Amino acid sequence: MYELGVVHRSVARPPRADVEALSAFGVATLHEAQGRTGLLRPYIRPVYQGAALCGTAVTVLLQPGDNWMLHVAAEQLEPGDVLVAACTTESEDGFFGELLATSVRARGGTGLVIDGGCRDVDALREMDFPVFSRAVNAKGTVKATVGSVNVPVVCANALVHPGDVVVADSDGVVVVPAAHTAEVAAQARSREDAEEEKRGRFAAGELGLDLYGMREKLAAAGLRYED
Amino acid sequence: MYELGVVHRSVARPPRADVEALSAFGVATLHEAQGRTGLLRPYIRPVYQGAALCGTAVTVLLQPGDNWMLHVAAEQLEPGDVLVAACTTESEDGFFGELLATSVRARGGTGLVIDGGCRDVDALREMDFPVFSRAVNAKGTVKATVGSVNVPVVCANALVHPGDVVVADSDGVVVVPAAHTAEVAAQARSREDAEEEKRGRFAAGELGLDLYGMREKLAAAGLRYED
Amino acid sequence: MYELGVVHRSVARPPRADVEALSAFGVATLHEAQGRTGLLRPYIRPVYQGAALCGTAVTVLLQPGDNWMLHVAAEQLEPGDVLVAACTTESEDGFFGELLATSVRARGGTGLVIDGGCRDVDALREMDFPVFSRAVNAKGTVKATVGSVNVPVVCANALVHPGDVVVADSDGVVVVPAAHTAEVAAQARSREDAEEEKRGRFAAGELGLDLYGMREKLAAAGLRYED
Amino acid sequence: MYELGVVHRSVARPPRADVEALSAFGVATLHEAQGRTGLLRPYIRPVYQGAALCGTAVTVLLQPGDNWMLHVAAEQLEPGDVLVAACTTESEDGFFGELLATSVRARGGTGLVIDGGCRDVDALREMDFPVFSRAVNAKGTVKATVGSVNVPVVCANALVHPGDVVVADSDGVVVVPAAHTAEVAAQARSREDAEEEKRGRFAAGELGLDLYGMREKLAAAGLRYED
Amino acid sequence: MYELGVVHRSVARPPRADVEALSAFGVATLHEAQGRTGLLRPYIRPVYQGAALCGTAVTVLLQPGDNWMLHVAAEQLEPGDVLVAACTTESEDGFFGELLATSVRARGGTGLVIDGGCRDVDALREMDFPVFSRAVNAKGTVKATVGSVNVPVVCANALVHPGDVVVADSDGVVVVPAAHTAEVAAQARSREDAEEEKRGRFAAGELGLDLYGMREKLAAAGLRYED
Amino acid sequence: MYELGVVHRSVARPPRADVEALSAFGVATLHEAQGRTGLLRPYIRPVYQGAALCGTAVTVLLQPGDNWMLHVAAEQLEPGDVLVAACTTESEDGFFGELLATSVRARGGTGLVIDGGCRDVDALREMDFPVFSRAVNAKGTVKATVGSVNVPVVCANALVHPGDVVVADSDGVVVVPAAHTAEVAAQARSREDAEEEKRGRFAAGELGLDLYGMREKLAAAGLRYED
Repeated sequence: MYELGVVHRSVARPPRADVEALSAFGVATLHEAQGRTGLLRPYIRPVYQGAALCGTAVTVLLQPGDNWMLHVAAEQLEPGDVLVAACTTESEDGFFGELLATSVRARGGTGLVIDGGCRDVDALREMDFPVFSRAVNAKGTVKATVGSVNVPVVCANALVHPGDVVVADSDGVVVVPAAHTAEVAAQARSREDAEEEKRGRFAAGELGLDLYGMREKLAAAGLRYED
Repeated sequence: MYELGVVHRSVARPPRADVEALSAFGVATLHEAQGRTGLLRPYIRPVYQGAALCGTAVTVLLQPGDNWMLHVAAEQLEPGDVLVAACTTESEDGFFGELLATSVRARGGTGLVIDGGCRDVDALREMDFPVFSRAVNAKGTVKATVGSVNVPVVCANALVHPGDVVVADSDGVVVVPAAHTAEVAAQARSREDAEEEKRGRFAAGELGLDLYGMREKLAAAGLRYED
Repeated sequence: MYELGVVHRSVARPPRADVEALSAFGVATLHEAQGRTGLLRPYIRPVYQGAALCGTAVTVLLQPGDNWMLHVAAEQLEPGDVLVAACTTESEDGFFGELLATSVRARGGTGLVIDGGCRDVDALREMDFPVFSRAVNAKGTVKATVGSVNVPVVCANALVHPGDVVVADSDGVVVVPAAHTAEVAAQARSREDAEEEKRGRFAAGELGLDLYGMREKLAAAGLRYED
Repeated sequence: MYELGVVHRSVARPPRADVEALSAFGVATLHEAQGRTGLLRPYIRPVYQGAALCGTAVTVLLQPGDNWMLHVAAEQLEPGDVLVAACTTESEDGFFGELLATSVRARGGTGLVIDGGCRDVDALREMDFPVFSRAVNAKGTVKATVGSVNVPVVCANALVHPGDVVVADSDGVVVVPAAHTAEVAAQARSREDAEEEKRGRFAAGELGLDLYGMREKLAAAGLRYED
Repeated sequence: MYELGVVHRSVARPPRADVEALSAFGVATLHEAQGRTGLLRPYIRPVYQGAALCGTAVTVLLQPGDNWMLHVAAEQLEPGDVLVAACTTESEDGFFGELLATSVRARGGTGLVIDGGCRDVDALREMDFPVFSRAVNAKGTVKATVGSVNVPVVCANALVHPGDVVVADSDGVVVVPAAHTAEVAAQARSREDAEEEKRGRFAAGELGLDLYGMREKLAAAGLRYED
Repeated sequence: MYELGVVHRSVARPPRADVEALSAFGVATLHEAQGRTGLLRPYIRPVYQGAALCGTAVTVLLQPGDNWMLHVAAEQLEPGDVLVAACTTESEDGFFGELLATSVRARGGTGLVIDGGCRDVDALREMDFPVFSRAVNAKGTVKATVGSVNVPVVCANALVHPGDVVVADSDGVVVVPAAHTAEVAAQARSREDAEEEKRGRFAAGELGLDLYGMREKLAAAGLRYED
């Protein structure tokens, strides 16, 4: 059950080195590495091409058309944090723009994931301040109703706790629970190493049918070839 | 009540200087400057990154899958105009492409906002002819049923009169009524000046909580902090 | 009626020269040139700006969340082929990524059209491997249930037979039946020549109203002008 | 340009007899009768089967997730009015439910059209209080930010002035401008009379091809028959 | 490749008894019975609760916002036929209403499946004339541009040939190719018999885990139980 | 982080009396009673009018197009339970139909909430077996890949733990955490009592403006009246 009207000041962040280890991997790899969990729904997209981020989550629960809590959250940021903002309902208003980005950056924040809208995207691109949102929308918001900061939130169908590591790139956004960062980074490393080897074999013309030993299973599943 | 089958030749355009004054501002700023009104729904998007326009509206009411009225409208253009095309129903066909853009530009038109589809987007990008549309679609249209030109239209849920100023950038599209251009430009100027000052304070690390004096209101609204 | 569980090894491809002839034209032109048929629904979009392809179709029928058949299809590729993948239901999972692209390219395949999701889009852009999809999604797939390869498929509401020529650019995706490639290329050439002449007249300020002789028809259809 | 923060107490309503005359017709007929204008987008649907309304509009401009203005509007109702509520942005929250319906009915209001969400739909069905909305949603709203009452609004892409007649049934919602009610009712009557005659001929097996004299035009348009 | 501007008068319909045999089964059963093929996308929905149909297809290819071809198609109907209407693009206009339903019924037609909009749904429900459509929309159409009748069409992503049997109920719409009707009916009968037996076992409390012998496969797939 | 491939047999269910207490309230009331939390996104709708349920959650995590885990979950049901099924990705296939409903009912289960599709809706209505789903779809599923049972799931953007109470009616679906059932029921009771009193005052013509004492706040917020 969400708590409304509360700001938790204490966040258990994983070691900075663990976050940096995760930043070496793409979202698709990390999603696989932690057993295909933690992915946000794909309607969350970067507001400019090439946007990417990796940081520890300061979570925000917004009210529709109201960005008051983003200002509250800015104070809770530590260097390396990213804001992860959910909303109590579906809302595509422009909750965030260049001024807030300036403030977030000044406090050490490195990006935003928001299940809502964003504006000033030209300025954000110039600042290279990465935002992943469900919409771009010039419509601004009010500051009238409280939500919460640093409570667990469900953002684009994924559960995010304060301090979780959030990684985003062109493929989407994934959440790595704070307690599993080292393990997931290790898995991702193994996976990338294996992929490197496969890449070479694929490039040389070997087929997945052979590389993965699929032919027998396909025959058993009833696949037949006709000329 | 829409008039169908009519072309109004007379359009009351605001002074050119007023249009130029508005062109200095972004859509988000102008939307705020005129009391948060006049914004088109955010499903209207630029067909290429960086597209932007500011001009006086020649309005077009289209029939679905039929671009006849765009040709009729081209004749009504004066230098500095933009076409604003609504449709009597939701239609994502490709009403507009490179040839029409060539014609529009030759007549002094500087862009298009359309609650419909657009095609030839590679060519439009090369021409740098800005189009804001609800879809990109190679499907062409017929020329069989009349609509109207220079009647008031509702385009993407916003009311647009011929001669209104339409401004579009990466954040969306906003309409400034012809009678309010000077006033809105002045408001936008004040707003930008105020933002410039805030930008500096945010960049220096000051929080919105303090800059906007929010702490008391938040406490009154019941926000509490926990460690 | 779809055949499930079958791979047809023989595909009747049109002459390579015909495919090359078609590659000179845009999708909008080809769609017009073949009587406004063969266009995929416009929700299929390039995964990076500038992606384009033209090749002979190796068709794939996928099961939701399962990319097994893409590996099967890779073996059926000949140089100049493109994969065209439909799914038995709507599914936006990431069926395809960089490793498969490497394999497809190694086998001579030049791109993918998929009524599903795609991942690794940064890597695909770097490889310049064109993919047209309905979504970008980091979510991977399983390899558990058979579909088919080289059966006729309906992809994004368009019927595609193996060996048909598929052309895709920023405007969308069009299918040219293998039996009509030469005829369609000739029509497209005529069309482009006619457009070239029109382009010049439009650029010189001539109106479509006059160029197409529309004034009389518009009057007959009841259009009236008012001052 | 919308006025925010204003309530207009004076509404020019058409004669009651005119409203009653319109109530005899379906939405599709009225839309045709006024030259195919005034239709709201079809995403506005009745919240229960059989809901229908016809009344004079008291318009409401809402803020997202905020139903304060519906309470303000209730005071402006006269017998026979319906509420027509637009929102400054897309919002599907449950702005309206059984308690407000009770209040509206007590003040003489007979229904609601809202470009937003509605809740308590079981109770509304039991009360037979017709609501046409874009969503059903249990999520309630706050009362924090002002909008307006009895200003012109754009609701689901249709312009509605206070005092306009709004008619809604299973086919959708149409707005008849207050100044045109008598004329539109007369047109609708003619149209229904003509349809009654056609209905008999169709039921007797006559074809539209003959009844509308289409055969020659179809041939001229190039239609050919093959056996 | 679609043919535009043609009406094929000859349709190879399957024996009437085969159509009747199919009418005994639900859409879900028939879809399974023919190897999970032939299903239209689920956005096609009945316009009133309880609508159902089973008949031989007279196919129609419509232009957006234009219902001319439905009148042409009415003449091609034989008793027991249903109209299956695709559109060259996505269009949700109200192509069909009560008058056309009266005409279709008088010619022996028993229903409509349309990848477009429908109106007069109250009247259709009273007539019990089943329509399956993608939208309900009071907006009418013009009669200006030709399409085709009795050509193969792709309707809601399914390929339909004239004479195919189309079955629709609350679960959706399925197409059974004319050449396979007897075989599919026999498969459906076997399937229903098997289901009848399973139904009794399920009702008695037996689990699918045991009835289908899943426990071993689940364990092999790695499923584990924890207390 | 989701666990894949696990079935938890132990579920901490709240006292049966608490569940019954909650069943007396509508979803909108319960959502308010627990501080406006726990609501599923409104795209989850009843598959037939009048469907309603209240029970303790047995949660299911499905793979796209695969209903294997629903059979696994059936064994874990106790009388009064409802199935709550999430999916690892967006999938609208028909995961559930009449046979599974028969099995679930035989094991004491009373309904289903599923972020996916459902079929056999006519049969479900006849059985009066309530299902709340995102789609109706005749397309069946396979049984090939494991998910989990009785792990915490995010279903339509709401977090659901096994044993939580799930209540659904025409307004939507809400989750009440197992630990808060008594408290929420008490709050809902207070709320309904207060509403009963308000209902009478509204029915007597009193305005919300007075009943809630809004006039002063509206004036303070800048609302003005004009004649």
